[in-house]
Amino acid sequence: MFRVSLSMNQITVQTNSRTEFIDITDDVQRFAQEQNLDDGIITVFVPHTTAGVTINENADPDVTADLETVLNDMIPWNNGYRHLEGNTAAHVKASMMGSFAQIIVKNGRLCLGTWQSVYFCEFDGPRSRHVWFKETT
Amino acid sequence: MFRVSLSMNQITVQTNSRTEFIDITDDVQRFAQEQNLDDGIITVFVPHTTAGVTINENADPDVTADLETVLNDMIPWNNGYRHLEGNTAAHVKASMMGSFAQIIVKNGRLCLGTWQSVYFCEFDGPRSRHVWFKETT
Amino acid sequence: MFRVSLSMNQITVQTNSRTEFIDITDDVQRFAQEQNLDDGIITVFVPHTTAGVTINENADPDVTADLETVLNDMIPWNNGYRHLEGNTAAHVKASMMGSFAQIIVKNGRLCLGTWQSVYFCEFDGPRSRHVWFKETT
Repeated sequence: MFRVSLSMNQITVQTNSRTEFIDITDDVQRFAQEQNLDDGIITVFVPHTTAGVTINENADPDVTADLETVLNDMIPWNNGYRHLEGNTAAHVKASMMGSFAQIIVKNGRLCLGTWQSVYFCEFDGPRSRHVWFKETT
Repeated sequence: MFRVSLSMNQITVQTNSRTEFIDITDDVQRFAQEQNLDDGIITVFVPHTTAGVTINENADPDVTADLETVLNDMIPWNNGYRHLEGNTAAHVKASMMGSFAQIIVKNGRLCLGTWQSVYFCEFDGPRSRHVWFKETT
Repeated sequence: MFRVSLSMNQITVQTNSRTEFIDITDDVQRFAQEQNLDDGIITVFVPHTTAGVTINENADPDVTADLETVLNDMIPWNNGYRHLEGNTAAHVKASMMGSFAQIIVKNGRLCLGTWQSVYFCEFDGPRSRHVWFKETT
């Protein structure tokens, strides 16, 4: 197998419920600083198939709460799926939110809109998860 | 706060209705030329939480019209959401389309399929919006 | 027209049914090796508007089978769409999965989670399709 893991450049996220959005913006910013990245892009990658990453509003926690609810309603946990492990809904939500995100860095700082944060999206928790970071210029 | 804005390398998009897809492909191409980017990637980033970006067909405007309709049907504007600002549907659609896109550049030109364009996706207009660009090699 | 095609750095994927997820992870890895990419990012880009790309589980083929079913149920093939070509559902699914993916490369190898593979997503097959690759550092 040619798969490797990024033992450096990763954070661990502990989730506490089946569905949960966790703000990891500060971790992305910290990574940019550790890499002395002045100007470039940071890729955030989630190496799991029942979790994802998205960028959305951080001002009112009801936004991500609503997002969780809409996804749960759209893709019910039990719905006659074939996958016997029983977590098909989590896999579908992972693909809908996506496994990676990109954030522009300028003068060493993340370029995000006023209300934007980067969220790790747990869809089959609680679990201990990893998130990987990589800078490019 | 560590957030900064990309005062350069941005365009302004004025939207005219609540939901609207606007072709910004020419702006991305212009940015590539201004940067003298011969070979690399351009990242398109939307710094808003009720708007997004997607790549889809430009030949028949009914395609993006249908896409708007499907998203509106899937995520109704009023549906007992918690977020009191009332635009939860726009936040959900933003995460479903995504906040960023990547386009390969070769010999100074965008590499897109015959029918592909890059669309700014307004989900809570009309508003004046920004889109940011960043090149990497 | 400023659009160009990546005659190099592309693979051809032959699909066999209207909806089909095809594992292209080995092709991405092969591209990284051909480019002698030791450390960076590979962007996978689908130059079609009725196909996409996603990262999801490879261990149990029922996961992608369920993902196809959920998307087919969510976005029916016939639903009074305006686009006369009749494949609106495929265009919507393409935007939901996305046209591009990014994979981190470390020591010449793709960094993917244990169960992750990169899937080409056919939504209007059977067809002969292309997928483009681009490395950045």
